[in-house]
Amino acid sequence: MKLNPDNSIPLYQQLKEDIKNSIRTGQLRYGEKIPTEPELSSQYKVSRITVRRAIEELAREGYLSKKQGKGTFVQEHKIQRKIEHLMSFSEACEANGMVPSSIITKKEVILLSDEQAKEMGSASGSRAVFTQRLRLADGVPIMCENNIFPYERFSFLLNESLDGSLYRLLEEKYKIKVKISTNSFIDVVRASGEIARSLQVSNGEPLFYLHCQIYDADKNLIHIGKQYIISERYRFYLEDYTHE
Amino acid sequence: MKLNPDNSIPLYQQLKEDIKNSIRTGQLRYGEKIPTEPELSSQYKVSRITVRRAIEELAREGYLSKKQGKGTFVQEHKIQRKIEHLMSFSEACEANGMVPSSIITKKEVILLSDEQAKEMGSASGSRAVFTQRLRLADGVPIMCENNIFPYERFSFLLNESLDGSLYRLLEEKYKIKVKISTNSFIDVVRASGEIARSLQVSNGEPLFYLHCQIYDADKNLIHIGKQYIISERYRFYLEDYTHE
Repeated sequence: MKLNPDNSIPLYQQLKEDIKNSIRTGQLRYGEKIPTEPELSSQYKVSRITVRRAIEELAREGYLSKKQGKGTFVQEHKIQRKIEHLMSFSEACEANGMVPSSIITKKEVILLSDEQAKEMGSASGSRAVFTQRLRLADGVPIMCENNIFPYERFSFLLNESLDGSLYRLLEEKYKIKVKISTNSFIDVVRASGEIARSLQVSNGEPLFYLHCQIYDADKNLIHIGKQYIISERYRFYLEDYTHE
Repeated sequence: MKLNPDNSIPLYQQLKEDIKNSIRTGQLRYGEKIPTEPELSSQYKVSRITVRRAIEELAREGYLSKKQGKGTFVQEHKIQRKIEHLMSFSEACEANGMVPSSIITKKEVILLSDEQAKEMGSASGSRAVFTQRLRLADGVPIMCENNIFPYERFSFLLNESLDGSLYRLLEEKYKIKVKISTNSFIDVVRASGEIARSLQVSNGEPLFYLHCQIYDADKNLIHIGKQYIISERYRFYLEDYTHE
């Protein structure tokens, strides 16, 4: 990419964006050595000072790591989440110093399939609210979140924008507090079809599949969740555990 | 495969083994419909009774599932393990009704790299015991387990066969009890090189990577662990969680 000196965005910021973009799209892979300062300077036709500033900021932000005498490398920049916590995606991002955002791809009434009904403890064919959101961190797609809510209690969601933290919305506006997570498990699946397109990854890309059932303190179902997470950008941390 | 009627192994058992093998090698994929009884009967040149018995047993053992009016399908047959428990692989297998076994691929003294030393709280270049085992369930490779132990306390492992439960051996023979798991996390990685060969999977196959540090009750390190697990054959279950 050629940087544009007439743009109001400073050159070092344009360069930063371009390098971040190369990491996002996989042109630069984790662990890979990036070109040297003189190479970047001639490649982008900008001064060494501009290159140095861009690299220093990217290193500070965790995208690159400088190794003494060896060069500068693409750093793993994963969202790290303690697996057992009922932490919302928004909170997990914030805990990792990233800015969360959402693109709402579906918000509709569905009729439960046999399997869904069984899982939700409802009658087959009964109504439910289905929401699908692409969740991003610093503008980078991380997960495709699919939630199914009992219709009677949660039809209000159809009129909400859902572009922020769902759990915060439920608690602050509707006084519904997520409390219990049960029947959760983690598989690995291959991206395909709608999920691959939504996450902007190739078919076959390995995804974490996180399944969960979320209840309030009275053990009423809030939602079941089926989250597809780009595994390259995510790490599940485990709580320390002491064996009895 | 042609079955051998002169073999001392009954035909229905030969057929069972052949179907299980097709599942293991991926010729039959999870969720796929298998041929009908008449089709299998003509394909393998055996009676319908033989086919029916093989299928019924495979269904009972969890490899196949029969759906009324739809046919017989390959069932997911994963080892399910509660993620937080310090459960040994042997125990996890037994809990899933599978028979665990091990192939020891490495048992040696290594000198710690900078990174390993840092993680183990030892000096760089100091000695450690490294063990690598292929762990199988019902004879099917599930994970490649890599453990590093402090040399002084665990050099006795070099003289142990290590073909059963490590934790049971440590507790029963050496009175060392695993107690605390810290700094554990789960990533997804792609199989390659030695790990792919050991697990008998193709390069690029997605694997769970489970990292852990295991201590005794006095907070002395027992080992660090780097486990590569065939994700198609494994599921991490989460403990139910109640938000405070």
